[in-house]
Amino acid sequence: MNLSISHLQAQYRDGSLTPKQLVTQLDAEIGDANSSNIWIRRLTLDEMMVYASKLESQDPESLPLYGIPFAIKDNIDLAGTPTTAACPDFAFTPGKSATVVQKLINAGAIPVGKTNLDQFATGLVGTRSPYGACKNSINPDYISGGSSAGSAVSVALNMASFSLGTDTAGSGRVPAAFNNLVGVKPSLGLLSTSGVLPACRTLDCVSIFARNTADAATVLQVAQGFDVDDVYSRQAPASEAAIGNSFVFGDSFIFGVPKTSQLAFFGNSESPQLFQQAIEKLEKIGGKMVEIDFSPFIETAQLLYEGPWVAERYAAIKDFFDAKPEEIFPTTYKIISNAAKFSAADTFKAMYKLKALQRKAGAAWGAIDVLVTPTAGTIYTIAEVQADPLQTNTNLGYYTNFMNLLDMAAIAVPTGFYINGIGFGVTISAPAFTDDVLINLVKKL
Amino acid sequence: MNLSISHLQAQYRDGSLTPKQLVTQLDAEIGDANSSNIWIRRLTLDEMMVYASKLESQDPESLPLYGIPFAIKDNIDLAGTPTTAACPDFAFTPGKSATVVQKLINAGAIPVGKTNLDQFATGLVGTRSPYGACKNSINPDYISGGSSAGSAVSVALNMASFSLGTDTAGSGRVPAAFNNLVGVKPSLGLLSTSGVLPACRTLDCVSIFARNTADAATVLQVAQGFDVDDVYSRQAPASEAAIGNSFVFGDSFIFGVPKTSQLAFFGNSESPQLFQQAIEKLEKIGGKMVEIDFSPFIETAQLLYEGPWVAERYAAIKDFFDAKPEEIFPTTYKIISNAAKFSAADTFKAMYKLKALQRKAGAAWGAIDVLVTPTAGTIYTIAEVQADPLQTNTNLGYYTNFMNLLDMAAIAVPTGFYINGIGFGVTISAPAFTDDVLINLVKKL
Repeated sequence: MNLSISHLQAQYRDGSLTPKQLVTQLDAEIGDANSSNIWIRRLTLDEMMVYASKLESQDPESLPLYGIPFAIKDNIDLAGTPTTAACPDFAFTPGKSATVVQKLINAGAIPVGKTNLDQFATGLVGTRSPYGACKNSINPDYISGGSSAGSAVSVALNMASFSLGTDTAGSGRVPAAFNNLVGVKPSLGLLSTSGVLPACRTLDCVSIFARNTADAATVLQVAQGFDVDDVYSRQAPASEAAIGNSFVFGDSFIFGVPKTSQLAFFGNSESPQLFQQAIEKLEKIGGKMVEIDFSPFIETAQLLYEGPWVAERYAAIKDFFDAKPEEIFPTTYKIISNAAKFSAADTFKAMYKLKALQRKAGAAWGAIDVLVTPTAGTIYTIAEVQADPLQTNTNLGYYTNFMNLLDMAAIAVPTGFYINGIGFGVTISAPAFTDDVLINLVKKL
Repeated sequence: MNLSISHLQAQYRDGSLTPKQLVTQLDAEIGDANSSNIWIRRLTLDEMMVYASKLESQDPESLPLYGIPFAIKDNIDLAGTPTTAACPDFAFTPGKSATVVQKLINAGAIPVGKTNLDQFATGLVGTRSPYGACKNSINPDYISGGSSAGSAVSVALNMASFSLGTDTAGSGRVPAAFNNLVGVKPSLGLLSTSGVLPACRTLDCVSIFARNTADAATVLQVAQGFDVDDVYSRQAPASEAAIGNSFVFGDSFIFGVPKTSQLAFFGNSESPQLFQQAIEKLEKIGGKMVEIDFSPFIETAQLLYEGPWVAERYAAIKDFFDAKPEEIFPTTYKIISNAAKFSAADTFKAMYKLKALQRKAGAAWGAIDVLVTPTAGTIYTIAEVQADPLQTNTNLGYYTNFMNLLDMAAIAVPTGFYINGIGFGVTISAPAFTDDVLINLVKKL
């Protein structure tokens, strides 16, 4: 079954498919097996049918996501279905869907289920879950990437047209790369986080996985919008000039890449060549490459990894964390425990350092329109991650951890494959509120 | 000697005064006495003469502050003169002046000396200094207000044309009210804080005391400007619209005042009437009063007072604080010790709460152009403050503590006198980067 949004829309329009037929067929195709550990709770056919039935009386052309099936990371609320954050004992059943989920449903989209994740959205691997390590969609010996693991794999394995993830430190980008998907990490505050369990509230955003850029653009258009109930929601500035980046995509553009000495591939011999191929693709669509000093971005990434922001993860689940430590995944517990190391004074000092790094990194935008890096420098098997869960995770965040601290918008886009079949991709990024500009650029690839 | 800027400028222009004559006369008039505890270190005649001599070859019309004497709060660097922050043991001698001091000197201004303050700029009273309690310029039994105590009193007692203070929680406004001065608390980041000892780095700004609004406007024009070396420096937005407040002073304007039940005068029987008189003055220049819900402003003020921001004060002087606690003023030590109570998680939680309060308080700007409150609800004698140093200080911050947390610009303006002769004033405020709009409004008063 071809689940691309434009294909389904065409079928709905010409009457060759109805939402009820879609959910019936999708339910049968997905079946009960969950060998990749994608789903924490998949909706039953009856549950999906409720959404499909409501569309019966609607005109397919009146709703931008009419009858489009989507998966939801299980730290985002769907009314009446438990939110576990991959911690069964933590589960609660929300009475109300997250604002962004409700917007999608209002636009005609049909939820398929809640997906597996690195517990409490802490990780970039997809293995830190009592629901089992989520397997890569192309080669099941390999990690899916995380934390939005099941959301990515459900789209890659054709169980949903698109999915929602969250992205605090790279969780919406790393799984996109490894599963050959487009991953949109919107500007902070562009999509509401009401009804999303926080990881780091000051840095969280809801992300979108899609099989191509056109689909991602359609979903982003529906999902975004100011939410008066989300205090971190932001209005996009009125003009491009206010963004501090004058880049509007034309026939040519300048993209920055880290100096060779600042690229990190963690011993992977194929990645340098794959990155080079991606650069050539960008040059073919009018890009001019310049090398930049990547050090402020690297230092910012380290600040997230080693700094006080982990205390936000603790603050988000404090009562549960203190009361039931034995119910928390061991690696996750170990990481979040680090919150206790940081005082208020440490926190402010880290913020001063961040402010200085923002100024330093911001200087890059005088010379480049977008930044281009590998989305991840390498790929690991599930066994490799389980053998060294912390260092492998750190390596995977080298190109992603800085993005929200520096208030950037980003799109992870697939550009090639490793010999083992796993996807390789690059992330194209720019200052906040360039989301549409980035989408238009990536559409040309 | 009349030290108003326009008067001195006229004398310089017509040749009836030279900078050398000014400093000679000023040095004689100030003399060696320091009975009000204004100066921590006044410049000698020889030292002032160096600045005056450099102006000899210049055209008085070419420099906006040609030969204008000013005082500097002793937490702001003047090259070659110790910065003590009112803690003698903490003193260091900077090789370079603070950016804002250097801008003023470059514009022709002549430093007169470094002024007394509540130690480490922690306080609104002016009594927390080993250099003695700074006395009110009108009635020496009363406090000067602080922390920019000596800076205010030096201008009020005609020892300087204007002065620099700092304002984190009200230190640039409370002393203005009590000494019958205009106190400009600029938008955060409008004036450089390079070379200023931080109190709370995320909330500090350099403030200006002047004897009238025209003088304050002249100084503000010279002192402001983006500083690449100050990571908290900001560019003003290009348009008024970007400020989120459409108010541009015309013939009429709407000013909000707290509902009667939310006004606090701490038992002072004269303040309500003095505030009413100020309201009538604003109505005479075209203002229309509306009552607003002041509660988000009050809650924000409490958040500063009771929240983790005190850890910034600790972070700023950590090594000294840990090494030499006995050298710190007892009340100041007690306050800054509270930093240890706050963890990183507490800090982030307070930031979430602040974000919500910013949203709530921000809603006011849909209904009003400016906010008007008493600058302080009451006034205390030095003895009263010494008897209860913490509560009196808290009371004085009721109308000032929220301002920087809510990213506002403000001007404290004198509007009346208590029967004991002490000044009473109101503060007119609006969102950041309305500084010029506020000045133009206050000029009409």
